[in-house]
Amino acid sequence: MRDVAIIGVGMNKWGELWQKSLRDIFTEAALLAIEDAGVDHIDSMYAGCMTSGLFVGQEHLASLLADYLGAGPIPSARVESACASGGLAVRMGFMDVASGMSDIVLVGGVEKMTDVGGDGATYALSTAADQEYEVYHGVTFPGLYALMARNHMEKYGTTRDQLSLVAVKNHQNGSKNPLAQFPQKITVEHVNNSIMIADPLTILDCSPITDGAACVIMCPADMAAKISNKQPVKIIGAGNATDTIALHSRSDFTTLNATVRAAEKAYKMAGVKPEDIDLAEVHDCFTIAEIIISEDLGFFKKGQGGKAVESGKTAIGGGKPINTSGGLKSKGHPVGATGVAQVVEVVHQLRGEAGDRQVKDAKMGLTQNMGGSGGSAVVHIMQAM
Amino acid sequence: MRDVAIIGVGMNKWGELWQKSLRDIFTEAALLAIEDAGVDHIDSMYAGCMTSGLFVGQEHLASLLADYLGAGPIPSARVESACASGGLAVRMGFMDVASGMSDIVLVGGVEKMTDVGGDGATYALSTAADQEYEVYHGVTFPGLYALMARNHMEKYGTTRDQLSLVAVKNHQNGSKNPLAQFPQKITVEHVNNSIMIADPLTILDCSPITDGAACVIMCPADMAAKISNKQPVKIIGAGNATDTIALHSRSDFTTLNATVRAAEKAYKMAGVKPEDIDLAEVHDCFTIAEIIISEDLGFFKKGQGGKAVESGKTAIGGGKPINTSGGLKSKGHPVGATGVAQVVEVVHQLRGEAGDRQVKDAKMGLTQNMGGSGGSAVVHIMQAM
Repeated sequence: MRDVAIIGVGMNKWGELWQKSLRDIFTEAALLAIEDAGVDHIDSMYAGCMTSGLFVGQEHLASLLADYLGAGPIPSARVESACASGGLAVRMGFMDVASGMSDIVLVGGVEKMTDVGGDGATYALSTAADQEYEVYHGVTFPGLYALMARNHMEKYGTTRDQLSLVAVKNHQNGSKNPLAQFPQKITVEHVNNSIMIADPLTILDCSPITDGAACVIMCPADMAAKISNKQPVKIIGAGNATDTIALHSRSDFTTLNATVRAAEKAYKMAGVKPEDIDLAEVHDCFTIAEIIISEDLGFFKKGQGGKAVESGKTAIGGGKPINTSGGLKSKGHPVGATGVAQVVEVVHQLRGEAGDRQVKDAKMGLTQNMGGSGGSAVVHIMQAM
Repeated sequence: MRDVAIIGVGMNKWGELWQKSLRDIFTEAALLAIEDAGVDHIDSMYAGCMTSGLFVGQEHLASLLADYLGAGPIPSARVESACASGGLAVRMGFMDVASGMSDIVLVGGVEKMTDVGGDGATYALSTAADQEYEVYHGVTFPGLYALMARNHMEKYGTTRDQLSLVAVKNHQNGSKNPLAQFPQKITVEHVNNSIMIADPLTILDCSPITDGAACVIMCPADMAAKISNKQPVKIIGAGNATDTIALHSRSDFTTLNATVRAAEKAYKMAGVKPEDIDLAEVHDCFTIAEIIISEDLGFFKKGQGGKAVESGKTAIGGGKPINTSGGLKSKGHPVGATGVAQVVEVVHQLRGEAGDRQVKDAKMGLTQNMGGSGGSAVVHIMQAM
């Protein structure tokens, strides 16, 4: 298996991009990544996208995006695992290069979520849950994560303010990210007093509906210096795992087993431990998710995630900075793009080019991307070369 | 790169499966493949599916199908490239094993197409075309393939009867396949006189709407004998390519460039030529498609595909048997499953277990799976070990 490095990253400004179509948004990010890497061609490409069929009536992105990018007739694939589609695309690109099938691979993620009216976005997102056993009975994602939050509060004493502090921290970080959708700073009071969505989660506990894309360029690690002038970042660990798609099938709502298993695999492959990680981008689709994930990745003991946020450990400058980009909460959450954007942030950090939100001496970063209520998870560990 | 072999195949009876949901259909085929291979576990899985979001309101198949199969927490991915989703899933499984990431991989394809009412299926399928430049203006797939047919007839003298003979042959083959959706034999007169869909294509030139799934099990070729008692079939060539998604962007409607390029790659990797292929399963979504593809794969000179059918060369017992399974036309076309089912048929043939439709002394087989109007194509070449 060949070692794989990331040599280019690209992401556009996220938000409600009314003037741009899905293909425009993806192509913008792809061209930024290609320019960043300085490559003159790509050998194959992958696009993570959750449900362009329901959001914009377009499938067959493998062909569409390669065509629109002017990259055809190269091999191209679209991969989907709900909100973990982007992370999964990174995994496919990694395997393509690792296997020796391709040398220079573009991996992107994209979602255009604001073109649907009414409850179209809520319906489209609900297809990440179990249609027959959850959605049909009226369950939505805020409801599912509210169940997790209520359980975590009961079992470990996690507080309403601790949930809010996740949002406050991530908006603080996002305020330093020029590409974030909601870069405004917020307070605990803002979160606590915003509209209730599913008790205990208010609207400021929830990640937004976003249009956006992110792309990276990969190549064999030993060819990186020849192919690009950019400092390469090596993918040293890759893990993917699944769990029951329906929340009610699990024995414990306060842990996300797919994340635990994916992380185990990634740590083992990399030969590192949670304490070796200098920063992490994790899937804070709801504030409670970041708390649970920070425990399931082994950064903090089970039940201590809320206290870790409160004590500032997960802030930039804390011992274990999480979501320096602003996370899904502030940067935005175009579902298929999120997993790739996490890698973009880690690469910027490991290259030392994260500006005002730079983590000092960052050498190793981790990304954790998740689908649905945690039914799938993808973890990557990266190291500066 | 490790050599990869197929050690198990499974497919259920295709048709209008009103009593079964998508998860049932997939799981049935997966269990058949697992039983056929005789393995007691799988290390990862891939599912090809075009648009379960639009057909049954369910995405996140990576989690759903692993969960329902009882295979979690293994890594799982859903891949999509319209009607080439199944072939693309085979390619991902191949790379997973080839790279060394996984040893025993399940690759499946599934589509549940009959749960939508009204023009729901036509709309869902149209998302494989260019939404902004084709679908919006009323183009459907019969219309696009009718343009190809008319062009091929004008340029090469291909006749109405030659188109019909593709359908007649494939239904003849399908009559020997107990899993085929439409196993009835038909005549040239039936095809010529059936309802006109898009001139010159009648309804019997078109593949049907189908519910179905197909699965295969892969492992490293050098471990095959240890893992399974079944005769392994080696994947010796793998090609994937893209073309413009919109038909109007192409300079020639009588050739499918993605198929030409994917085949070139597969032949090169395998070190074989078109004349070495003993049988092929190709993407006869419409009768004209089989004629064009048989030329683009190099089996016949450009323009001679129609005559080849007429002379019986593509029949079982002819020099180059095509679609011995019945093809999409008779066997059915659950879009995401088709590419995997093609591999299932080739494996049965190379093992010598295809019964009444067995090709004598079959040693090497090819599959060609295609998305949309040919915007993506996946080709695999397999050899008995």
